[in-house]
Amino acid sequence: MQLYNDYSEGAHTNILKALLQTNLKQQDGYSEDDYSLEAKNILHAKIKNTNADIHFVSGGTQANLIVISSILKSYQSVIAANSAHINIHEAGAIEATGHKIHGVESLDGKLSPEQIKPILEEHTDEHMVKPAMVFISNSTELGTIYKKNELEELSTFCRQNNLILYLDGARLGVALSSKENDLSLPELAKLVDVFYVGGTKNGALIGEAIVIVNDKLKQNFRFHLKQHGALLAKGRLLGIQFVELLKDNLFFELAEHANSMALKLSKGIAKLGYNFLTKPETNQIFPIIPNSIIEKLNIKHGFYVWSKDENNMSVIRLVTSWATKEEEIYEFMNDLKEYS
Amino acid sequence: MQLYNDYSEGAHTNILKALLQTNLKQQDGYSEDDYSLEAKNILHAKIKNTNADIHFVSGGTQANLIVISSILKSYQSVIAANSAHINIHEAGAIEATGHKIHGVESLDGKLSPEQIKPILEEHTDEHMVKPAMVFISNSTELGTIYKKNELEELSTFCRQNNLILYLDGARLGVALSSKENDLSLPELAKLVDVFYVGGTKNGALIGEAIVIVNDKLKQNFRFHLKQHGALLAKGRLLGIQFVELLKDNLFFELAEHANSMALKLSKGIAKLGYNFLTKPETNQIFPIIPNSIIEKLNIKHGFYVWSKDENNMSVIRLVTSWATKEEEIYEFMNDLKEYS
Amino acid sequence: MQLYNDYSEGAHTNILKALLQTNLKQQDGYSEDDYSLEAKNILHAKIKNTNADIHFVSGGTQANLIVISSILKSYQSVIAANSAHINIHEAGAIEATGHKIHGVESLDGKLSPEQIKPILEEHTDEHMVKPAMVFISNSTELGTIYKKNELEELSTFCRQNNLILYLDGARLGVALSSKENDLSLPELAKLVDVFYVGGTKNGALIGEAIVIVNDKLKQNFRFHLKQHGALLAKGRLLGIQFVELLKDNLFFELAEHANSMALKLSKGIAKLGYNFLTKPETNQIFPIIPNSIIEKLNIKHGFYVWSKDENNMSVIRLVTSWATKEEEIYEFMNDLKEYS
Amino acid sequence: MQLYNDYSEGAHTNILKALLQTNLKQQDGYSEDDYSLEAKNILHAKIKNTNADIHFVSGGTQANLIVISSILKSYQSVIAANSAHINIHEAGAIEATGHKIHGVESLDGKLSPEQIKPILEEHTDEHMVKPAMVFISNSTELGTIYKKNELEELSTFCRQNNLILYLDGARLGVALSSKENDLSLPELAKLVDVFYVGGTKNGALIGEAIVIVNDKLKQNFRFHLKQHGALLAKGRLLGIQFVELLKDNLFFELAEHANSMALKLSKGIAKLGYNFLTKPETNQIFPIIPNSIIEKLNIKHGFYVWSKDENNMSVIRLVTSWATKEEEIYEFMNDLKEYS
Repeated sequence: MQLYNDYSEGAHTNILKALLQTNLKQQDGYSEDDYSLEAKNILHAKIKNTNADIHFVSGGTQANLIVISSILKSYQSVIAANSAHINIHEAGAIEATGHKIHGVESLDGKLSPEQIKPILEEHTDEHMVKPAMVFISNSTELGTIYKKNELEELSTFCRQNNLILYLDGARLGVALSSKENDLSLPELAKLVDVFYVGGTKNGALIGEAIVIVNDKLKQNFRFHLKQHGALLAKGRLLGIQFVELLKDNLFFELAEHANSMALKLSKGIAKLGYNFLTKPETNQIFPIIPNSIIEKLNIKHGFYVWSKDENNMSVIRLVTSWATKEEEIYEFMNDLKEYS
Repeated sequence: MQLYNDYSEGAHTNILKALLQTNLKQQDGYSEDDYSLEAKNILHAKIKNTNADIHFVSGGTQANLIVISSILKSYQSVIAANSAHINIHEAGAIEATGHKIHGVESLDGKLSPEQIKPILEEHTDEHMVKPAMVFISNSTELGTIYKKNELEELSTFCRQNNLILYLDGARLGVALSSKENDLSLPELAKLVDVFYVGGTKNGALIGEAIVIVNDKLKQNFRFHLKQHGALLAKGRLLGIQFVELLKDNLFFELAEHANSMALKLSKGIAKLGYNFLTKPETNQIFPIIPNSIIEKLNIKHGFYVWSKDENNMSVIRLVTSWATKEEEIYEFMNDLKEYS
Repeated sequence: MQLYNDYSEGAHTNILKALLQTNLKQQDGYSEDDYSLEAKNILHAKIKNTNADIHFVSGGTQANLIVISSILKSYQSVIAANSAHINIHEAGAIEATGHKIHGVESLDGKLSPEQIKPILEEHTDEHMVKPAMVFISNSTELGTIYKKNELEELSTFCRQNNLILYLDGARLGVALSSKENDLSLPELAKLVDVFYVGGTKNGALIGEAIVIVNDKLKQNFRFHLKQHGALLAKGRLLGIQFVELLKDNLFFELAEHANSMALKLSKGIAKLGYNFLTKPETNQIFPIIPNSIIEKLNIKHGFYVWSKDENNMSVIRLVTSWATKEEEIYEFMNDLKEYS
Repeated sequence: MQLYNDYSEGAHTNILKALLQTNLKQQDGYSEDDYSLEAKNILHAKIKNTNADIHFVSGGTQANLIVISSILKSYQSVIAANSAHINIHEAGAIEATGHKIHGVESLDGKLSPEQIKPILEEHTDEHMVKPAMVFISNSTELGTIYKKNELEELSTFCRQNNLILYLDGARLGVALSSKENDLSLPELAKLVDVFYVGGTKNGALIGEAIVIVNDKLKQNFRFHLKQHGALLAKGRLLGIQFVELLKDNLFFELAEHANSMALKLSKGIAKLGYNFLTKPETNQIFPIIPNSIIEKLNIKHGFYVWSKDENNMSVIRLVTSWATKEEEIYEFMNDLKEYS
């Protein structure tokens, strides 16, 4: 059994079925097909904003680098948590488009106005870059989520300080489906300038839906997509998948399943007396386990060691997905109990 | 019926079946899955070179911009035909990575040493860019193909002049399956430094296989992929498709079908007395038709007007594909005959 | 004697004297010194536009790459004559900032609306770059100048078509001092969006004054300067020089001298029956001379062979400067007469 | 009196005299003049390495961005102290060329192998950038210097770990002239791969001499210079200045003067019982002074408040230069004594 990540399987069956059913219908290329149009209409309804511009791309790094580079002027920079995907795990994709990332120390992977203010105060003239965007992810790279009031505060602060607020939603499904969540998708769409809805980590083969809410960021976005090789000739592949995920409630059902599997894990682990690096809220949890037990667990179970802790303990990352089976959770818990 | 392009349908059925069959097998991400490995092995055998590095990406523009920018130093430039995809239809993707393209006038879309020499002679010092790569496509954007001796001459010239030879194979299937072709895939792989095998325009949903033959170009290529957002989390999607295309002979069967449909078209059109912009050799043909007839044809048939000709004539582009039906060809020809 | 270029000597004596006189006065750095302020005030008066933003940089390539990259969005391109400095002699500096240059065939080095239109008509969607700027030089790289009506037409066309008009004035002094000129500096400043006034080739040690007329292009320009290493710590060096060049009429006196020396040359050469590649109008002239004579001339005189012509003739480039002496012209002409 | 920085005056008189004397001698452009050649020869002798490649540019940011971008591949990053000029005060120039800077916490502005190791250990695969260079400055932005054994350790570590070691010598004069210094210029040149010798902050009008010691970094460097607008048409301006600075011992005499002025300041300040942010070693010192006194000092004396300290104290930066007069130091000290 593997708990490495949430993209180890293919796609939900409905998606594959839809690919088969639509396969021979001739369609225009480059996301101008009927399915992409339909998916946009559905998503417009879900976010309760028919004015938003929606674009489908194949992955999260691609979404991030295109969104960020399309918005920032060459001398502008982006503020993110130290743990942000763009700051660590995108091979310098943002800097490669010319922009500095200000990495902010953050224990829970989230950002607040208090963490951003010192950076604004420091950067005052043309000898330094000009911070112009705040990057957040929901859920974060540490599994935590933004509560409604947190996002509201951040949004207000950004608007007061002329900062674009961009939300990376690679794992937006599990964030909004978390038992701790009190934020709706339409509310979120009002509070940020641009965000994306992640398909790849929530049951699609590939696909992220970039949603541009702020009118000023919309112009000629397809040029940016094309220039970065992100306009797929068979854009239908992205459209069909988002129709399937969004037309009923599949997107959130899959996320809820992933969360409920993670909840079983975190409850069981907590019961055994272990602590967590961050509060378990979504499908990524970070228990702190003795190294000796990690070694034994690793024989049958796949997962990443996140960081070394003190006292011969380590933080491990366990990730559940739409495809995780309940039996697998039991098996993991049984082994952990046995070794503990 | 549409003859706009060769990516209007989904994928060949075998590919969709394989996606279904493999769907729930857990795999490593980022093209380190079993299927990608298998596809590489098969392609190694097809090109008779097990040392080549193979990487799968989602589209042609992505392949081009990553390959070219990974090879060229910041002051180096690439030589291409004026009609080259990188020079016109990639929204400046190559320049966006920092490199000048020298567009060379070419009536057939191909390049020869004679066309390249003057550029080398002109660029002699540090006040100018330094040409370091030749970009060709096979088949070309004008439907033509490189004969074996043409590619050999070009290859020899490039090696003598320290130029990397890169072949864009978005339509490599139809090139090598053309009745006019005398070049084998292993021969091609020996003559160039790097090329890609196009899946998207030959029956795949997405997918191009970059093949790096020249050892000097191999190092750390995955960093380049990641930095441009081209490493798919579910790389299996690319691997599975190339296994299906390459394991038997599906890749070439699909290309032969597209070519044979185009041949019917071009023979019929020639019989009616029309000329062509370039010699019909693959699935893209460019007949020159009176504007009055084009208007009538356009009512039922979809295709692009390529360029205005003299005498109230225009060049149109007709593209057939793996999915084109014989009836459609007959229908088009009947209409053309009727209007002529 | 050398006629290679107009930057073979140091600077006009007044400039060196001013450097000495001001040497120990403490000044703020980065072009916020008193002299830079004074130079801006003088230039504001000369162009009759006190709203223009003025920035001093050290050279022409630097000016071009910063101005162009500060204005264009990543998917936008610039239209220029094939012979334009940015297209040939800046080592790909513009492409290195991410932008395609459309090189337009032009026999006299100038651009007209008719030459630009076809490029606008071709570039219609997001698969291609979006032309957004026209680059011209005055005088051009072929020594020619824009007449008032030519610049007016171009300006009107650019404004109608949403194109920024940028004028490279590396040799603006000789252009406006030409006997053929009918354009004033204030008129020029009204017709373009941004231009620069070249000091290096007209008697300064280094220094070009970028003048931003269009309000939309002004914001945060100093960030662009700093990011490209163009904000000199001792910006006074640039300010002092432009004060000297502009406060009286030195700038135009030096240019007139260069032009009058070139006029003597071109008249003499024409009298001997030789033709010119382009009409001699400024300090660069391009006579077409038999190769055998060029060889002999080359023994005593330094100049570049510009291009091979037919019939054993070649185009040579002769450049005079503010420092060219009349005796040198006579000596050259005597030799040419003797060999002819 | 101002203690803001070391570039408030023009240049040492010898430099201006040399500009006058050489003014009308015709020279080749773009740093191929006799004076640049002579300056290179002298510097070769000073560093005892005639194989090093030497290039003159106009400023430090320009030197840094060109050196770093010429060396790093697109996925490679550079490690620097948090306080490094490239990390704060170059408006994102390095990121603008595509590269991440890893800012390392450092109280004295210096780097040691222990501070670099964790970054190497973290960056292990293609999902992250690949650290490939270490950037240090001597003297540092905090006025401190590298002792010989510190630079040796760093050099050994970098060579063992395949890291290019680049030393920013904007203030190399004061570093090597410090009373604390035990490192010679030839020793330094052996320990690093590339460095630059700063003229602007040590008596020149403009000018930094880039010295490339590592053969692998030499190729086609002039293309990089040209592409970034750093090849001055009148390169003689740089050459002449370095001849004057280096031919006798002017460069070090000027630096010693700046240091001795700073030493008087720091001794006096210490005597009054004040502490310093970093140990005073060169011409930049960072005393910690009560805010109330700073206010009074600021009326007559110009200097920057570096950072707020606790207890109503602040760190201020005082910078002396080749042109600082002894009376000015006494005046400052008298005032400080009076207010303390």
